[in-house]
Amino acid sequence: MLKNLLGPEIRELIERKEWETLKETLENWEAPDIAEFLDDMDSGTDRVILFRLLSREIGAEVFAELGTTAREKLMATMNDLQIREILIDLPPDDRTSLFGELPGEVTQRLVNLLPAGERGEALMLLGYPEQSVGRLMTPHYVAVRPEWTVGRALNHIRRRGRESETISMVYVTDSSWAFLDALELHHFILASPKKKVRDLMDGNFVHLNPYDDREEAVRIMEHYNLPALPVVDSLNVMLGIVTFDDVMDVAKEEATEDFYRTAAVTPLRGNYPEAGVGQLYKKRIPWLMVLIGINLFAGAAMASFEEMISRAVALVFFLPLLIDSGGNAGSQSATLMVRALAMGDVRPGDWVSMLGREVLVAGLLGLTMGLAVWGLGIYRGGPAVAAAVSLAMVAVVMMGSVIGTLLPFLLNLLRMDPATASAPLITSIADICGVLIYFSIAARFLGT
Amino acid sequence: MLKNLLGPEIRELIERKEWETLKETLENWEAPDIAEFLDDMDSGTDRVILFRLLSREIGAEVFAELGTTAREKLMATMNDLQIREILIDLPPDDRTSLFGELPGEVTQRLVNLLPAGERGEALMLLGYPEQSVGRLMTPHYVAVRPEWTVGRALNHIRRRGRESETISMVYVTDSSWAFLDALELHHFILASPKKKVRDLMDGNFVHLNPYDDREEAVRIMEHYNLPALPVVDSLNVMLGIVTFDDVMDVAKEEATEDFYRTAAVTPLRGNYPEAGVGQLYKKRIPWLMVLIGINLFAGAAMASFEEMISRAVALVFFLPLLIDSGGNAGSQSATLMVRALAMGDVRPGDWVSMLGREVLVAGLLGLTMGLAVWGLGIYRGGPAVAAAVSLAMVAVVMMGSVIGTLLPFLLNLLRMDPATASAPLITSIADICGVLIYFSIAARFLGT
Repeated sequence: MLKNLLGPEIRELIERKEWETLKETLENWEAPDIAEFLDDMDSGTDRVILFRLLSREIGAEVFAELGTTAREKLMATMNDLQIREILIDLPPDDRTSLFGELPGEVTQRLVNLLPAGERGEALMLLGYPEQSVGRLMTPHYVAVRPEWTVGRALNHIRRRGRESETISMVYVTDSSWAFLDALELHHFILASPKKKVRDLMDGNFVHLNPYDDREEAVRIMEHYNLPALPVVDSLNVMLGIVTFDDVMDVAKEEATEDFYRTAAVTPLRGNYPEAGVGQLYKKRIPWLMVLIGINLFAGAAMASFEEMISRAVALVFFLPLLIDSGGNAGSQSATLMVRALAMGDVRPGDWVSMLGREVLVAGLLGLTMGLAVWGLGIYRGGPAVAAAVSLAMVAVVMMGSVIGTLLPFLLNLLRMDPATASAPLITSIADICGVLIYFSIAARFLGT
Repeated sequence: MLKNLLGPEIRELIERKEWETLKETLENWEAPDIAEFLDDMDSGTDRVILFRLLSREIGAEVFAELGTTAREKLMATMNDLQIREILIDLPPDDRTSLFGELPGEVTQRLVNLLPAGERGEALMLLGYPEQSVGRLMTPHYVAVRPEWTVGRALNHIRRRGRESETISMVYVTDSSWAFLDALELHHFILASPKKKVRDLMDGNFVHLNPYDDREEAVRIMEHYNLPALPVVDSLNVMLGIVTFDDVMDVAKEEATEDFYRTAAVTPLRGNYPEAGVGQLYKKRIPWLMVLIGINLFAGAAMASFEEMISRAVALVFFLPLLIDSGGNAGSQSATLMVRALAMGDVRPGDWVSMLGREVLVAGLLGLTMGLAVWGLGIYRGGPAVAAAVSLAMVAVVMMGSVIGTLLPFLLNLLRMDPATASAPLITSIADICGVLIYFSIAARFLGT
């Protein structure tokens, strides 16, 4: 982007107080670039100066793209009138997402700053549950009636187009806003102006319900390759649209949340670099404590083999290897399942066939790994230890894979996110089973 | 989607050989739904029958959306003439991605089936490296000249629009195809027809180079919220466009690859359910063997404390707890870093500030976890063991976090994907350090 090149120049202009030149320079930038530049600025005062130089229209666009921290710092320097101006200029979906990030009282105060008509819109969008399609939608779209001619529809698109988030898709509704069809703009451009809108309609459409999970919007948009989707309530009334840019943001956020879950971190709100030490602590400690609880069982399982261990300490040297191998194979299986479930490639009912294949793969993996540690077992503890370690390796790897395969399906059945089957969780559970399997096999081979 | 409801009906129609009704039913479906239905069919014969019933145009669209397995099975039943027909009807970017999936000789044979003009296009797109923007682009876009009037431009859009992948964006080039500007369609619709295209131009555009990594397309499209991006070569000649639907697919694939890496699985091509046992084995075994290699060091480290362990076997019971806690905290840090690097929220140069914060967070986490295991240490082994275990916990958690924070930056420096810092890898490295830290501290407290 431009900002790395122009950063020093901008700083110099601020120092020299050349406001006119600064204003002209900024006018040539795209709003997302200005936002990124403001996000990266160290000096809060410079940020306020730059932001105030922007035209009202660009200012709102930039504000919508800013990170949480920069946004809050800017708002702290503004009075209610200035905040009101920005809020009015924000597109409704960005406004809703801004409100969603703020504490309840602040949201209420800001909603009250809006003019009456816009206030109703904001409250309506905020009324839908977090993570729902309702929170993503914007009521700014173009709708035409089936009885209109294409010419009249195009005139209407021309008039209404400026306020709409997109005109790539045009929606057909009746006079009471019942949803009838979704048509791409090019149908209107390519058709004769005298044709009726009704004749362009093909009845091919997909729509979302405002209470749908926002992941549904990602899935449907990816599946049908549409740049915008209509949101229709249960009475078939058209409420708004969801556009591809918001859906791409959701897809990114959902992937990030799943990444955090795979590492047993409760998803953060906002960017990682903006999170404070306290917030990071709070997001990480609960799972670490749960994992300690589970790990205690592995210790307890070992304690029951105390006598054998004290007679053959060499057995313990293979313990990290064995329990980690079980955990590693299990994490692999779990990640494959979690991702396949999230992408809809595998359905919850498919667990039997998935398990069959994973057991087969795990058997092959275990055999390979068992052979690899055989030699080491001979060298460190003789043939009996080697046999115990190799056999335990096969068993532990297969057991880890079975746990890793089944846990995501089980979590799904319990209506929890399958991604909760994180690598650390699988490792901890596999440890307990690994300890039991390894020492039981060893007990047999060492004749205890 | 429809298919779950209509599946049984379709099967009945096939059995009764009611081809006309089947054809009519299918005509009401969207191409992605038909593709999903064909993907899920068990009977290859039924799939061929259904596919042959589709119109040529819909058939190509469906073919583009099919999974690898269904596609290959269908192609095996077709002669060259039939394959040629489908290839010609496929949009160039889908054709390139199909060719990319097939072995070299098959690609060559298929390219030869294309008419001369299309052959050049396919070879041009295939000439760009895998994972490059060049492979994603389509040459089917609408370009207008600056000296045209808006009315003439709209006429041109009308004529060329049908063959274009999108007309949401219109590109301005000069007569030698030098790229000048990118404009949204609504500027043309909203402007007076007598205005010149030159007057609509604002010089605000972003473009891609065909040799850019395809992740660059994802980043830029997310940043600027544009439904299509122009691809321009180093001489400023416009080569094609990349559209949001292909970019969403790339974003999905890249996220999936990163998920696989976090679990130490080499990224698969194609969907997980379509992967064979042999392929899964090959993608999983290399990392498992590397991890065994690393784990051996943990065993060796333990062997050096053999004497102490045989005198205080109770120490070993805390081993899984301690080494797992280090690995868990490390996996959390690594995942946070990998994701922040991938999203561009953190830059490679930020490692110092990231490390500072992570050490602070890890200190707090370690203290909490150390306190939690204190009581257990007293109960199982008395005050000396309790002190050793608690202190080791703090040290191990901090060490794990430091490894987890630094490894992604180190991998990045070595020009490897930071996501290679998988949970299993962090766990295995943390194990070695954990064993050394724990037993060294224990040796001090137990006076050995």
